[in-house]
Amino acid sequence: MNMTDPLPSWKSSTEGGTGSKEAIINFVENVASKYNPEDRIVTFDNDGTLWSERPRYFQEYFMLPALLNLDKISLQSSLEKSAPLTREGIMREDGKHYIGKTTEEYVAAANTFVYNTNHPTLDRPFSDLTYQPLIELLDYLRANEFQIYICSGGGRDFVRSFSQGAYDIPPENVIGSSVVTEYDKTQGSGGSVVRTKVAETDASDQADKGLGQYNDKEGKPVGIQRQIGKRPIMAVGNSTGDLQMFDYTDQGAGNSLIVLINHDDGDREFKYNDGTEGENLSWDKAQTLEHWLVVSMANDFNTIFTSD
Amino acid sequence: MNMTDPLPSWKSSTEGGTGSKEAIINFVENVASKYNPEDRIVTFDNDGTLWSERPRYFQEYFMLPALLNLDKISLQSSLEKSAPLTREGIMREDGKHYIGKTTEEYVAAANTFVYNTNHPTLDRPFSDLTYQPLIELLDYLRANEFQIYICSGGGRDFVRSFSQGAYDIPPENVIGSSVVTEYDKTQGSGGSVVRTKVAETDASDQADKGLGQYNDKEGKPVGIQRQIGKRPIMAVGNSTGDLQMFDYTDQGAGNSLIVLINHDDGDREFKYNDGTEGENLSWDKAQTLEHWLVVSMANDFNTIFTSD
Repeated sequence: MNMTDPLPSWKSSTEGGTGSKEAIINFVENVASKYNPEDRIVTFDNDGTLWSERPRYFQEYFMLPALLNLDKISLQSSLEKSAPLTREGIMREDGKHYIGKTTEEYVAAANTFVYNTNHPTLDRPFSDLTYQPLIELLDYLRANEFQIYICSGGGRDFVRSFSQGAYDIPPENVIGSSVVTEYDKTQGSGGSVVRTKVAETDASDQADKGLGQYNDKEGKPVGIQRQIGKRPIMAVGNSTGDLQMFDYTDQGAGNSLIVLINHDDGDREFKYNDGTEGENLSWDKAQTLEHWLVVSMANDFNTIFTSD
Repeated sequence: MNMTDPLPSWKSSTEGGTGSKEAIINFVENVASKYNPEDRIVTFDNDGTLWSERPRYFQEYFMLPALLNLDKISLQSSLEKSAPLTREGIMREDGKHYIGKTTEEYVAAANTFVYNTNHPTLDRPFSDLTYQPLIELLDYLRANEFQIYICSGGGRDFVRSFSQGAYDIPPENVIGSSVVTEYDKTQGSGGSVVRTKVAETDASDQADKGLGQYNDKEGKPVGIQRQIGKRPIMAVGNSTGDLQMFDYTDQGAGNSLIVLINHDDGDREFKYNDGTEGENLSWDKAQTLEHWLVVSMANDFNTIFTSD
């Protein structure tokens, strides 16, 4: 280990941590170095892994004002008026509400939203709700020449709107769900890529739904192969939607590392992710495999948010 | 200009060149440097731009033995037995013949083909038919911190099978057409991404055809936005299939550079690309705009193939 602690917001075992910090450092120092830098691929889930996802996926709040015909963003009251959307439901609304917009216009609108809208209960802009220990992990992996990708069930262009600013991850390293787009040569001086297809709720396949890539569960390995063409050696996630990404990455102990962020800190964030609330097949599997780390937010993290 | 010539296979104006060499160097030295390295995006078409595409797209030869039930690859005689396939036809056959294969298996098979099968008339493996002046251009742009992508109408995974070896371009920087794939957790230790859908010739949309991204013409800007999320500042291509990529890149003289490779050398390669044979809307447009360079293979290139 370096003399300087590369993960200062992570507690070591002697400080009450679960040993996750040591296991990560061991992997980076002793396993990752066996791979050439160009093959040190790591994929991070976004919602619930790099930033919060409760009470709802943040992308849903970007849709709510439009869904509810609000003149002004009023997230707290909105919450009481609508049922939570599924991942697919969010992408469908996303497609509907920004139809005809160029991807540049969409990204600009999402960026404004993320940096200027307060979370309904945590009283800070969404952009302030990234996790400090994960930001340190990104920096540590970057310093060790990992190629860092986000692989999110959320919208690709939504995540791109803040990935550079929040995580220092450029748009080309963001894999996510998408709506159907087309090139429109009449938009701007060189033409633009425009969000074009109205989502049809009852359609039987993704394209007819107005969806392109559906990048959750089985869609995550598909998105990774499509975008990168290499298999990750490390994957970080938190939910049942990450199981297939974890499996795709897992080449056995000593060859790859799976990291699951367990949301077990109701005081500082939210408590929901230890298999006690709803299905979490990733958590279930991690209980049985030593090289699938379960990171306890309560015990492993000194600090939760970058804005703390 | 550097004292060492960065493009030794390109002829300067005083050596009989058209001035393309000087225009490219001027752009790299005086325009590209205004952009941060992460925004110095350049996209290269592959077929007819980085390697030959005649008498047929090389990917078609990868399909021919299967199409014709040949026991042994016999390309010359195959040519006489079938009509050329369209871009879409090639992707459809590609989907059919490799259905059920993992993407790793497909890439390995394509790599073996490209490096071990001779071109029907040029008497060398396909891998030897990359263009030396373009390889030098890739190296020159790389040395100037360009982010280099291939944006091909051909198959993404087909091009990935040789892009690293032939061009030093890694798989994550290859944008191309694709077939539908799914994650199959039963394949190998961590599961694999498998080519799954049988192409239906008369289907009305891409997904039902068994095609994912169709990365030609209007599909090129769509593929670029999806994969990179940034607009190129330079694009290199040769055919009508590159027009939309060129338009999407073109932000006016002094801000971007369009380079069209004109196949006008029937003695050393093939002569077909100057608008005299079939439609070439890119060539037509390049005639009217000074910042759309037309590179003459006959006059601008000292050497054609890397294997010459």
